[in-house]
Amino acid sequence: MSIRVTVWGENVHEQKNKVVAQVYPDTMHGTIAAALNRAGGITARTATLQEPEHGLTPETLAATDVLIWWGHAAHGEVADAVVDRVCEAVWGGMGMIFLHSAHFAKPFKRLMGAPCNLTWREAGERERLWVTSRQHPIAAGLPDHFELEHEEMYGEPFGVPEPLETVFISWFAGGEVFRSGLTYRRGAGNLFYFRPGHETYPTYHDANVQRVIANAVRWAHNPAARIADPGAAPNRPVDAALEPITERGPRLHHDGEEGYR
Amino acid sequence: MSIRVTVWGENVHEQKNKVVAQVYPDTMHGTIAAALNRAGGITARTATLQEPEHGLTPETLAATDVLIWWGHAAHGEVADAVVDRVCEAVWGGMGMIFLHSAHFAKPFKRLMGAPCNLTWREAGERERLWVTSRQHPIAAGLPDHFELEHEEMYGEPFGVPEPLETVFISWFAGGEVFRSGLTYRRGAGNLFYFRPGHETYPTYHDANVQRVIANAVRWAHNPAARIADPGAAPNRPVDAALEPITERGPRLHHDGEEGYR
Amino acid sequence: MSIRVTVWGENVHEQKNKVVAQVYPDTMHGTIAAALNRAGGITARTATLQEPEHGLTPETLAATDVLIWWGHAAHGEVADAVVDRVCEAVWGGMGMIFLHSAHFAKPFKRLMGAPCNLTWREAGERERLWVTSRQHPIAAGLPDHFELEHEEMYGEPFGVPEPLETVFISWFAGGEVFRSGLTYRRGAGNLFYFRPGHETYPTYHDANVQRVIANAVRWAHNPAARIADPGAAPNRPVDAALEPITERGPRLHHDGEEGYR
Amino acid sequence: MSIRVTVWGENVHEQKNKVVAQVYPDTMHGTIAAALNRAGGITARTATLQEPEHGLTPETLAATDVLIWWGHAAHGEVADAVVDRVCEAVWGGMGMIFLHSAHFAKPFKRLMGAPCNLTWREAGERERLWVTSRQHPIAAGLPDHFELEHEEMYGEPFGVPEPLETVFISWFAGGEVFRSGLTYRRGAGNLFYFRPGHETYPTYHDANVQRVIANAVRWAHNPAARIADPGAAPNRPVDAALEPITERGPRLHHDGEEGYR
Repeated sequence: MSIRVTVWGENVHEQKNKVVAQVYPDTMHGTIAAALNRAGGITARTATLQEPEHGLTPETLAATDVLIWWGHAAHGEVADAVVDRVCEAVWGGMGMIFLHSAHFAKPFKRLMGAPCNLTWREAGERERLWVTSRQHPIAAGLPDHFELEHEEMYGEPFGVPEPLETVFISWFAGGEVFRSGLTYRRGAGNLFYFRPGHETYPTYHDANVQRVIANAVRWAHNPAARIADPGAAPNRPVDAALEPITERGPRLHHDGEEGYR
Repeated sequence: MSIRVTVWGENVHEQKNKVVAQVYPDTMHGTIAAALNRAGGITARTATLQEPEHGLTPETLAATDVLIWWGHAAHGEVADAVVDRVCEAVWGGMGMIFLHSAHFAKPFKRLMGAPCNLTWREAGERERLWVTSRQHPIAAGLPDHFELEHEEMYGEPFGVPEPLETVFISWFAGGEVFRSGLTYRRGAGNLFYFRPGHETYPTYHDANVQRVIANAVRWAHNPAARIADPGAAPNRPVDAALEPITERGPRLHHDGEEGYR
Repeated sequence: MSIRVTVWGENVHEQKNKVVAQVYPDTMHGTIAAALNRAGGITARTATLQEPEHGLTPETLAATDVLIWWGHAAHGEVADAVVDRVCEAVWGGMGMIFLHSAHFAKPFKRLMGAPCNLTWREAGERERLWVTSRQHPIAAGLPDHFELEHEEMYGEPFGVPEPLETVFISWFAGGEVFRSGLTYRRGAGNLFYFRPGHETYPTYHDANVQRVIANAVRWAHNPAARIADPGAAPNRPVDAALEPITERGPRLHHDGEEGYR
Repeated sequence: MSIRVTVWGENVHEQKNKVVAQVYPDTMHGTIAAALNRAGGITARTATLQEPEHGLTPETLAATDVLIWWGHAAHGEVADAVVDRVCEAVWGGMGMIFLHSAHFAKPFKRLMGAPCNLTWREAGERERLWVTSRQHPIAAGLPDHFELEHEEMYGEPFGVPEPLETVFISWFAGGEVFRSGLTYRRGAGNLFYFRPGHETYPTYHDANVQRVIANAVRWAHNPAARIADPGAAPNRPVDAALEPITERGPRLHHDGEEGYR
């Protein structure tokens, strides 16, 4: 069965900025979704900030195996209730891929628990991504490095937690480096951060970039059933203990009570 | 110089529950702070939910090397502005130790980015903590295991990210296990989660528990200067690039502009 | 295409010990291979210590996607040349699963770089394995815990490096705990250590244990092409540099020279 | 009390190569040890390949808190018995720092369990090291980046296990990147790999490099008592079990027996 992907795009600069509109006449999220639909085994649709609930209703998330997120100018306009819903879905097993400037998106900051800072420069300089984890599924079919002739620079320190795996590191012509491909797990959800994708450059038309994103979708997909309430903290009553124990000492809670949240 | 510790206590059950008041006549946070002040090289004070700004003003956090957090019944009453401030301090380099039911405290959930779920049972059963990382500084001076005769059970799955290190794992008489001592880094701040400490049992009077907390304070202390604005994402202008580059292609941002947040 | 598995068994106690022969009339490796062949999508064969080159010729390893290893009494009889070959295959991308007493097998110690110590007790006591990483592919289809009524105890500290992920932790009736399911990556190879399987108990007839091993095979399988010489350290000559550089300063090496090994 | 460091040098090119002898008239290990002795709180001595037992007798290792290793041309001449001894000391709690070409040193390969491959180019090109983990103790007192005007290039993929922490990443003028500062723990020993230090360049005279090495010594030092036999796997007899259990089922081992190694 096909992996169901929702590509979420902020959809601001595509509408307001002529350069971006020319580079991405089908929008950035539309371009990414189209590439995924050509990749095989993936069915991608899009959702945007401007739709009701940003296009991320409970029903949409329930039918999304992997969510891709691109945002930049309008991080602050994303409703907290939607951010909560997205995080719950991730914890329950939805995969999620954050692209480029989504390093400061609300759900990324929430899932990282870290400042997510970096340095940046918009000069159309050369970026070269090196594969650091050989034969990693996210690097399948790639050469040992590939280049993007024009990209925005992001530089270290990148204020994220130590990842499970570092898959790519970028070299920039201006002298910086950046951990460009990082994997995480939060609850039952697999996360991947992938750096490239400044909106004034044709990055998402690049075949290697498209391949990374499709690989990451397959890697992030958790086929297990979604956990309905990943934060539930069930009481295990004494009389249902797996080993025979006797209740001892004073108690704060009553039988069958919910704990404090 | 002495490590400056603030022990934050919710201070609810000590005031409202007779059992807890009897076990901790000096409050839980007071008991922990007193033990730290006897440990050597540590100066501990307390702060509570009921104080203005919960006792965690910017000045207090600036003068705190390591913050210890115990909360249970009143997680929801902690102001979000204080949570933000605490997280910023951690990212800037403040160490932080979360105790027991603080697994559901707002700052812990924010720093983990994860559901932090677990299972639980209040039956006064035996807990035995095993050291899993030999000669780890947080286990200094401990035997290879120690017991707490009466504790609340916390069981796996514990919904936290993979830690940097697993230092303790608990065995419970009723048949469960739990990762009881976990280290993390968020920004420049070192974090430690330590499981024991249900308020109706004398856990914080236990010598081994006191030793773990004092060890964890020393481990979590980052002597480097606190980073003032850990989330800052400075622009590196083209003319200040470390290698000579020429600006190419279209731009979204103006010189010296702040990026989007 | 089917995942090709080789189940390596030491095959000593099955031949010499009546109890073991009765529990495993088809040998332990034979029992494991048969279960894998019933699992779907896996084709398993066996190899043993007593065969020439322990049944692990270069041709066999080249045709093995995932190698499973069980050894106990005869770790020292495994030829170092075969250990080298197995490690090279792992680094090149072969998956590998180590079972139970293989914690002291030569290839496990070589791939861990650690003492791999533990404590143990052979008393037929109850072991209960808890899933610590919810919805992890290696735990697919399992309940949140399962029991083995009679097992040998292994206790912490388990002297292995911090894993990528902790998937299972065991509770033992005698009071110990153990990290029973751990994932690692070495080179391009995925590794899984799984604790249960003392030879005098019917562990490998257990449906949950069989399921874990089949899941682990699928998880460990790296479909990418095997790297032929994973330790090669190629020189990148100056005239082939990706950015134009000029050779400067004194040299130790000649053009096209191999580096020191 | 002072941290006791032994700086181990292969001491081959200093004796045979005029360029190296001019750059390091006091040898590389001598230069490093002298810098450490000036750093404060550290007492450093040297040992070399040519000494009996390579200068690494059991007595020397027992009196060494942190061992630093530089080797290149003569990795193969290091006796396996000494490698075993060094690894045992690390597992028991000795800190260890591997420099530059020691990525292929026997003890590094043994402690990593991985191929440790990389790419390289000897062109005296510019290397710029970026701090990726802000306020990490190993980066104490450093700027956010520093340069070495002439260095040998090492490029990704670097075939080591995922580290606990990535502290530095290098940018090279010729277009490559490399994870230049990585932390690990093996047994009770803290390990640090630090990339710079090709013998024909004055790297170990550089103030930032000297600072990193001194910082790493302080970080790697484990003040806990050395574990005498880190690989011991003690039996825990039934009658000494922490919880009352009764022996059940068949046994392979006799009381008080040592397990298989």
